[in-house]
Amino acid sequence: MTITLTTFDWVPEFAHGYVRDFRIRWTLEELGLPYQVDTVPGAEKTAQHLSRQPFGQVPMISDGDLSLFESGAILLYLAEGTALKPAGADGARVLQWVVALLNSVEPYFMRWADAKFFEEDEAAAAKAEPMLRQRLKQVETALGDRDWLVGDSFTVADLLLAEMLRIPGENGLLDDLPQLAAYAERITARPAFARAMQDHMQHWKDAAAA
Amino acid sequence: MTITLTTFDWVPEFAHGYVRDFRIRWTLEELGLPYQVDTVPGAEKTAQHLSRQPFGQVPMISDGDLSLFESGAILLYLAEGTALKPAGADGARVLQWVVALLNSVEPYFMRWADAKFFEEDEAAAAKAEPMLRQRLKQVETALGDRDWLVGDSFTVADLLLAEMLRIPGENGLLDDLPQLAAYAERITARPAFARAMQDHMQHWKDAAAA
Ligand SMILES: N[C@@H](CCC(=O)N[C@@H](CS)C(=O)NCC(=O)O)C(=O)O
Ligand SMILES: N[C@@H](CCC(=O)N[C@@H](CS)C(=O)NCC(=O)O)C(=O)O
Repeated sequence: MTITLTTFDWVPEFAHGYVRDFRIRWTLEELGLPYQVDTVPGAEKTAQHLSRQPFGQVPMISDGDLSLFESGAILLYLAEGTALKPAGADGARVLQWVVALLNSVEPYFMRWADAKFFEEDEAAAAKAEPMLRQRLKQVETALGDRDWLVGDSFTVADLLLAEMLRIPGENGLLDDLPQLAAYAERITARPAFARAMQDHMQHWKDAAAA
Repeated sequence: MTITLTTFDWVPEFAHGYVRDFRIRWTLEELGLPYQVDTVPGAEKTAQHLSRQPFGQVPMISDGDLSLFESGAILLYLAEGTALKPAGADGARVLQWVVALLNSVEPYFMRWADAKFFEEDEAAAAKAEPMLRQRLKQVETALGDRDWLVGDSFTVADLLLAEMLRIPGENGLLDDLPQLAAYAERITARPAFARAMQDHMQHWKDAAAA
């Protein structure tokens, strides 16, 4: 049974490259799992979509009878028992880091990004920035000179961290964190990242042409 | 090997009842797992603590050789394969809901709570409140008239949601969400909640006396 990934059929152009279906595409490419794409209208929240995704958001997947929302949960579900989230103690450490990114890092990224890009309120963005910088610095310190967050190979924790670092990096927030910047650059250079990005960007072209 | 739960030895009195070690105590009580408590100084972030918890926060657990931080990850780790997070499709749905609470609900709670209780900035709290209310309403809608978020029994998703609803409920944010309020009240009436709360509150007394 092929996995179906659900995303929007349209998002504003500045969001191309960053919609969270990208995280799932990248994971699926790393795992070598084929998938098909289904869309929900981007401009409105239909009752049908809200009945499947309580917040009216994307992404979602369906895998046979199982339908799942929340990008972080989907990453963990897909990775379970593979090299991206091995069994045992290292798997628990991957879970720990994924949850840390979702609950202790991304919320501060969102406060900053909502202020900066959605509200375009520079004062609010400046107020949110120090806490985001502190969290990024703490993650860099925890990583130290290791190549990976957990054990000695790439896991979904690294995928999620590198994915989350893109917008901060493009906005100068990694300029004083060279070790973290180098880590992110190395991970986004993986071939699976490029394949997922190609398909993600093509999606907006195809959907616009349809 | 007995599980060790690490929390602070001191927190301001208004935080008694709400420090996130409570989530873990409640889960351990539901599972009938004995545990011991270890503390880190509440007033300062020691280098030793930062080397184990990158953000200098609590809670943490250790289980034999494994040491884990992030309350959400600890809940999932402890619940794995038990009735609180069964195997198979329902287990994936528990994961989905726990992640939704951590990444789509709690961040909006934190924005509101940081403004209201830490910054004591009523204007900022008022600005953050509608988004939190929207998320709570969406969770109520998703729950509908079911007793549990997943399947037909209590899971860690319910534990985490009921735990997260306490402060909003005490501040009137569930007044127009009677179904969600009744759900939370039913779940926090479980005996394991009371046992965990008793030990959580006793901890601050014992630590102050030590
Ligand atoms: N916590 C959710 C957040 C999903 C999310 O923010 N999705 C965005 C697209 S990247 C969305 O659907 N935005 C539309 C909206 O919030 O109404 C997840 O990780 O899946
Ligand atoms: N995402 C973390 C948050 C932990 C957290 O906020 N802990 C608070 C106590 S409830 C803390 O350690 N605060 C001190 C600080 O942030 O410096 C988790 O769920 O474990």
